[in-house]
Amino acid sequence: YIQTLDLELDQIEKGGYPHFMLKEIFEQPKSIKDSMRGRVNASLGHLQLGGILQYANKLTNAERIIIVACGTSWHAGLVAEYLFEDIARIPVEVEYASEFRYRNPIIREGDVVIAISQSGETADTLAAIELAKSKGAVIFGVCNVVGSSISRASHEGAYLHAGPEIGVASTKAFTAQVSVLAMMAIIVGNKKGTITESQYIALLTELETIPQKVEKALKSNDQIVEIAEQFKDAKNFLYLGRGYNFPVALEGALKLKEISYIHAEGYPAAEMKHGPIALIDAEMPVCVIAPQDNSYEKIVSNIQEVRARKGRVIAVVTEGDTHIKNMAEYTIEVPATHEALMPLLTVIPLQLLSYHIAVMRGCNVDQPRNLAKSVTVE
Amino acid sequence: YIQTLDLELDQIEKGGYPHFMLKEIFEQPKSIKDSMRGRVNASLGHLQLGGILQYANKLTNAERIIIVACGTSWHAGLVAEYLFEDIARIPVEVEYASEFRYRNPIIREGDVVIAISQSGETADTLAAIELAKSKGAVIFGVCNVVGSSISRASHEGAYLHAGPEIGVASTKAFTAQVSVLAMMAIIVGNKKGTITESQYIALLTELETIPQKVEKALKSNDQIVEIAEQFKDAKNFLYLGRGYNFPVALEGALKLKEISYIHAEGYPAAEMKHGPIALIDAEMPVCVIAPQDNSYEKIVSNIQEVRARKGRVIAVVTEGDTHIKNMAEYTIEVPATHEALMPLLTVIPLQLLSYHIAVMRGCNVDQPRNLAKSVTVE
Repeated sequence: YIQTLDLELDQIEKGGYPHFMLKEIFEQPKSIKDSMRGRVNASLGHLQLGGILQYANKLTNAERIIIVACGTSWHAGLVAEYLFEDIARIPVEVEYASEFRYRNPIIREGDVVIAISQSGETADTLAAIELAKSKGAVIFGVCNVVGSSISRASHEGAYLHAGPEIGVASTKAFTAQVSVLAMMAIIVGNKKGTITESQYIALLTELETIPQKVEKALKSNDQIVEIAEQFKDAKNFLYLGRGYNFPVALEGALKLKEISYIHAEGYPAAEMKHGPIALIDAEMPVCVIAPQDNSYEKIVSNIQEVRARKGRVIAVVTEGDTHIKNMAEYTIEVPATHEALMPLLTVIPLQLLSYHIAVMRGCNVDQPRNLAKSVTVE
Repeated sequence: YIQTLDLELDQIEKGGYPHFMLKEIFEQPKSIKDSMRGRVNASLGHLQLGGILQYANKLTNAERIIIVACGTSWHAGLVAEYLFEDIARIPVEVEYASEFRYRNPIIREGDVVIAISQSGETADTLAAIELAKSKGAVIFGVCNVVGSSISRASHEGAYLHAGPEIGVASTKAFTAQVSVLAMMAIIVGNKKGTITESQYIALLTELETIPQKVEKALKSNDQIVEIAEQFKDAKNFLYLGRGYNFPVALEGALKLKEISYIHAEGYPAAEMKHGPIALIDAEMPVCVIAPQDNSYEKIVSNIQEVRARKGRVIAVVTEGDTHIKNMAEYTIEVPATHEALMPLLTVIPLQLLSYHIAVMRGCNVDQPRNLAKSVTVE
């Protein structure tokens, strides 16, 4: 009887969804909105992170930002590299926490460290922070769990406010991380004057539209079920992206690995011809993130290269794109937004694709084999 | 008749080896020696690169080094990141040339760029150099082909002197790149005083022993033929390494992808538990680079984690290691050397493994499908 009650409780917690992961994917319009609540107000030109006060100037005047993280958080860090370099003109080095901590990293006056971890308990990231602190670095923590070890070990930081994430494969934490890191970069860019006032307002305005655009991106769910049906028996997968969407390619591949046990790998699209293109034949699904941004033409040629080797292309495109539709086997549309915020939308169909493939393969999506929700061992 | 003559010529050029790739793998004791010839003399405490003179101080006083490259050269760049940060205490950012050139990269006073390309004709790398030059950066080229476009577009640089590389999958160019980049880092470290005189001499002395140690590493060839026989039908492969050997894991995986069309992926070993470990079952060969260095104990636990999931471990270990022998299904020994030079030895068995697997699968190792020797298109 106790077990029955537990199951019912479990059902209630899942809010009618068959898995926590799907619930959390669909929660993203809300969790992203929550990550911005009280922080962004475009009409007032207002953007503020309450947790970054005393050390705010350190961040603004940083000579270099070092981001330490693992797994999905490391991918959010890679997006942040593009954000901070592009918007705030600060060089960023993204490090695997486990690699950073075992060498003798260079930390100089004026360097700041951003540590990203959903749980705030990732052992390697925590150890990396302690090392960086011992060398005099200022640490900003970007965590979801309030009061977690990493948030306590950081000098300052910003919480995600994404709500508890139960599914082992991170989804809503990733988008909230990108959202918070974008806010940090925009604050710094505005203070430094590396973006104009009108660019600043445009970014805030776009930020505010993201939750409803994510809502729209989620409407591709039924189409993605059909695509998943076609590819559920694939042995391998490649994911390609450029610029802001290169880390999204890595993240899409990681989701598929984690929950469906399909060997998927992400690559910056242009690197394909330096090796991975040898893998492409009629058996190889290639998921290409190809929104209409600066690198659109280049990624279109990458799609043509894949097609010429008979690879099966699934493309994530900007709403209304007809050009790629004629080339790719499947196209999934997401709304248009500012290039810097595109990862918040392009990742959505990739999360759904990995989810549906895993379910069709009979995998335990909420608790994939061999994986723990937070890696508290080294 | 002309064709017959061509074939004979081809045979002569291959020097009795069935493929250029194998010839070039076995040439490495000589090509590495050639890369050091006239440059290193440990007994005189002498190390000099003739091509880096006028701008040598720029390199020594660099605030930051940005390395741009593609494919295998990018992996050599990752090794160089560890070399320059460890030995010369200069922060290094390694960029995919294709990603670097399509954003608006941050180049500041005191930043220098190192461009790595075997052919010296890689289109994305050349474009990245031109962009960096337009922003006032000093460019050092590390190329094999004398008089190539990249060598001409650079302010200064160092040639590999590895001799022509014909096999599409780069082998001897990689080791010569690492050798030249190590020399650059040691010169800078010595000038800056970030290594002591005795560390400097120790590094030079070790450098001089590398050719004969590579010779010794090549003696594992027969054993690797047996291992290749066991794994030739594998569908997937993982390669794990830490620190200096993390880039070697990436390079080992790339070789297998390029010529055997097996989906292989490299990872920093500690990242495994953040996702890829879900892929590991009795079907998954995992090649672990596990020499006796600072991270030895950590990589031993990674091997145990793989074993606990029934993964099949092939370990590259330091000569005489008996501990890992009891855990791994196969161990391949390489001689001991300075941690910073280990990639020059650990990569050798991985080159051989990919070669033999590809031959057993009937692949055209010297001209793998879809790939060109030098990527002169964008």
